[in-house]
Amino acid sequence: MRIDIITVVPDLLRSPFEASILKRAIEAKLVEVHIHNLRDYSTNNYKQIDDYQFGGGAGMVMMVEPIDKCITELKGQRDYDEIIYMTPDGKTFDQGIANELSLKENLIILCGHYKGVDQRVRDHFITREISIGDFVLSGGELGAAVLCDAVIRLIPGVLGNETSALTDSFQDGLLAPPIYTRPSEYKGWKVPDVLLSGHTAKIEAWREEQAYERTKKLRPDLLED
Amino acid sequence: MRIDIITVVPDLLRSPFEASILKRAIEAKLVEVHIHNLRDYSTNNYKQIDDYQFGGGAGMVMMVEPIDKCITELKGQRDYDEIIYMTPDGKTFDQGIANELSLKENLIILCGHYKGVDQRVRDHFITREISIGDFVLSGGELGAAVLCDAVIRLIPGVLGNETSALTDSFQDGLLAPPIYTRPSEYKGWKVPDVLLSGHTAKIEAWREEQAYERTKKLRPDLLED
Repeated sequence: MRIDIITVVPDLLRSPFEASILKRAIEAKLVEVHIHNLRDYSTNNYKQIDDYQFGGGAGMVMMVEPIDKCITELKGQRDYDEIIYMTPDGKTFDQGIANELSLKENLIILCGHYKGVDQRVRDHFITREISIGDFVLSGGELGAAVLCDAVIRLIPGVLGNETSALTDSFQDGLLAPPIYTRPSEYKGWKVPDVLLSGHTAKIEAWREEQAYERTKKLRPDLLED
Repeated sequence: MRIDIITVVPDLLRSPFEASILKRAIEAKLVEVHIHNLRDYSTNNYKQIDDYQFGGGAGMVMMVEPIDKCITELKGQRDYDEIIYMTPDGKTFDQGIANELSLKENLIILCGHYKGVDQRVRDHFITREISIGDFVLSGGELGAAVLCDAVIRLIPGVLGNETSALTDSFQDGLLAPPIYTRPSEYKGWKVPDVLLSGHTAKIEAWREEQAYERTKKLRPDLLED
């Protein structure tokens, strides 16, 4: 898989790809992530990529031309499955979209910044608009990092233990059950006996019950589908 | 406001706080963000902070004792309004929670990693569990960065133009209307005439109508409340 991220704040995206699982996935050549500074595609000497909005109002708008240049150059080099725009009014990202995107070959992710991009970019270049939630961020960069993390960890071979992602919350439609590790007692707080019993079938039954109860209590909406 | 983030991957959190709006907010002393490496609170020579889970299964669990030591040390220095655990089964983060947290003085954010923390941490130390969405990430670090970004930009003085955050999506329960900037025509794609008219009342009316139409089309759930 190859992911091209277009941003006006490339610095913001450094460390998420230089640490932990994403770093190892890149080093193992399971994914390529290329970060493009939109200012390199500016058409004037001031490296301008934004301007005031027509009709007035606070906040700057990212211009269509530099984005057109960058996307057109990338599309000239390979086919892209999706050109994604990170925006709070996009479709809400979830594990189903992460699963789907993890099967793609080439993705472009455009990060909005300031008030967002000129609407003509959305109308003519973007194939998919994604939001990571009902809140507003300074820009799409953290959303892009979140999307990449959720997607890349699903690529076979990225996680050390291949079964690990399958027991995460949401993969079976339930929240994960409570988990415990040593010591079995800490300040009088004990681990549930069943987990220390060594009785695999009872442990499985307890976990299923706990996962269901936790989901019913915290996220009953997940059980409605 | 002061935010203390507890993590096993401090490197992952560097760049979000060293760029753009968060960097400026920290430099302007509008917020302090302190990142604590949980390994510094390990109780053995191997800097161990995780262990296998009781009852078996893939993935490591973060131990209670180092987290207890770190949180107890911080609480000895000042009072905290909330001790937040970032976890996919927490309450889904939204703009309302961001608004609420932006009024707090001191926050601790504990980032889960691997399979998560020992349940006893959640039972005895955490006051609030927050998820940024229905998807699984490698750890809570990106979630913590997202939460900090959404919260910090609401602190008065952080955004250059104070009116800017108020016209964002969600603040008035509607998605933002389409925005345009120069040029007024690009490759035959034109900016709507009304935005070029200079007629403020008509522009406002158009924007309200567009915001409503866009919300009705993309996120009808926002209109139901």
